[in-house]
Amino acid sequence: MTVTPMRRDETALPDSGRAARLSIRANKHQGPTAGLAPGYVQGNLAILAERLAGDFLRFCQLNPKSCPLIGTSAPGDPRVSELGDDLDIRTDLPRYRVWRNGEIIAEPEDIRDFWRDDLVSFVIGCSFSFEEALIAHGIELRHIACGCNVPMYRTSIATRAAGPFHGPMVVSMRPMTPANAIRAVQITTRFPAVHGAPVHIGMPELIGIKDIMKPDYGDAVEVRADELPVFWACGVTPQSVIATVKPDFCITHYPGSMLVTDRRNSEFAIM
Amino acid sequence: MTVTPMRRDETALPDSGRAARLSIRANKHQGPTAGLAPGYVQGNLAILAERLAGDFLRFCQLNPKSCPLIGTSAPGDPRVSELGDDLDIRTDLPRYRVWRNGEIIAEPEDIRDFWRDDLVSFVIGCSFSFEEALIAHGIELRHIACGCNVPMYRTSIATRAAGPFHGPMVVSMRPMTPANAIRAVQITTRFPAVHGAPVHIGMPELIGIKDIMKPDYGDAVEVRADELPVFWACGVTPQSVIATVKPDFCITHYPGSMLVTDRRNSEFAIM
Repeated sequence: MTVTPMRRDETALPDSGRAARLSIRANKHQGPTAGLAPGYVQGNLAILAERLAGDFLRFCQLNPKSCPLIGTSAPGDPRVSELGDDLDIRTDLPRYRVWRNGEIIAEPEDIRDFWRDDLVSFVIGCSFSFEEALIAHGIELRHIACGCNVPMYRTSIATRAAGPFHGPMVVSMRPMTPANAIRAVQITTRFPAVHGAPVHIGMPELIGIKDIMKPDYGDAVEVRADELPVFWACGVTPQSVIATVKPDFCITHYPGSMLVTDRRNSEFAIM
Repeated sequence: MTVTPMRRDETALPDSGRAARLSIRANKHQGPTAGLAPGYVQGNLAILAERLAGDFLRFCQLNPKSCPLIGTSAPGDPRVSELGDDLDIRTDLPRYRVWRNGEIIAEPEDIRDFWRDDLVSFVIGCSFSFEEALIAHGIELRHIACGCNVPMYRTSIATRAAGPFHGPMVVSMRPMTPANAIRAVQITTRFPAVHGAPVHIGMPELIGIKDIMKPDYGDAVEVRADELPVFWACGVTPQSVIATVKPDFCITHYPGSMLVTDRRNSEFAIM
């Protein structure tokens, strides 16, 4: 009788942040990071020249709901050790966008060829963390049920400016029954480091949204007659603001291809 | 030179729960208890015969949002010591209502003449506690600004029945901007023992309220174009349910004349 030793299914998705990064770094995993390493924090990435980094840092600190900073690097240093000991920001995301003067010039799978000694990395919390908590509490998220992107809108809510960085807050919207909206406020309040509580409920026109079925980013989803649209500050805000500034050089993650970290979502729960 | 010793202003309102009760017991304070002993928990009162007490207790436990029980007595015992060492439920409220078969038969200032050995007291948390927290956070309450009673509505939300006790949840409504509504969910979530988080936001028709300007109890208040109606489970629910049952005998507080306790609102905050 031959005994086959138990072994891990090679095709299984990485189940830790580190495993996900190693898989991405080795080009074994490509494409969106949604669903990778459940329970681990994923982040938006913005890389700017040191010259702009001070203002951008201040912008994040002035606008913590839309720009919850969870990690930064020293200038020229590709490590962000608070998010993972071995983390290399140049190789550990599946895909990047490289910008010059507000135009995309490349969408590479690693950015070692673009790296410079004056680059500073900013990692900003993402809604995946609080969505995981909402789902764990049995709240259905329409865009996930529909298999599409969450709808996002530029609003009339101004961010607080810092240096050249200014512009409207971008929000994501999830339709919910009033009871679920109340529960969602409670659940997401626990996660201030990843956007936290909603910024608005109901009445989209009050925050400058003219047509809820025409999002500025992502996909439209149905808001049913017994539902309220619930709005959260969105990590697309800093990208939208950077796009306005048109820095001569910057790098961001490719949409949906986030940085997977070693931090657990539960670490970010304040209670 | 004559030195006048510092002394407390005899006309000042009682500033502790005990001082308020002593003042009421001595008939020095009559009328509504709103504003007495700021920071101290006030409660709704229901007194039932022991025969019904078990079912009513279970009703409260099944419906904690509308019937948050903060104190009970042993049968025939006028004390509710968890709410105040010296508390005598027969004398310590400014006014009572005595009911026979669902009809009010008296509205006395004390109930010693009506007391029986089989009576059980139930003290139920009241919205004064969370309103104090909302006001402390700078949220204006329309009914207070207008000097009227909070509007209350019978809803299509059923309570969970226990024995003869059943009926619709009664809710109170406070209009708020969406940002204040979100903040109010956060603030009142801290106070589960005094109704806690709202039960509904927006869209009154979804909970069976046909006309927001026609409350079933209290007074109508304006809901402005940039506001959502925010609904909390209300301590009038148990009174409304008892009225339906028409017990052969019961005693409640007179509207607005609550029991002032020695417990502080802050004790009831869960975080």
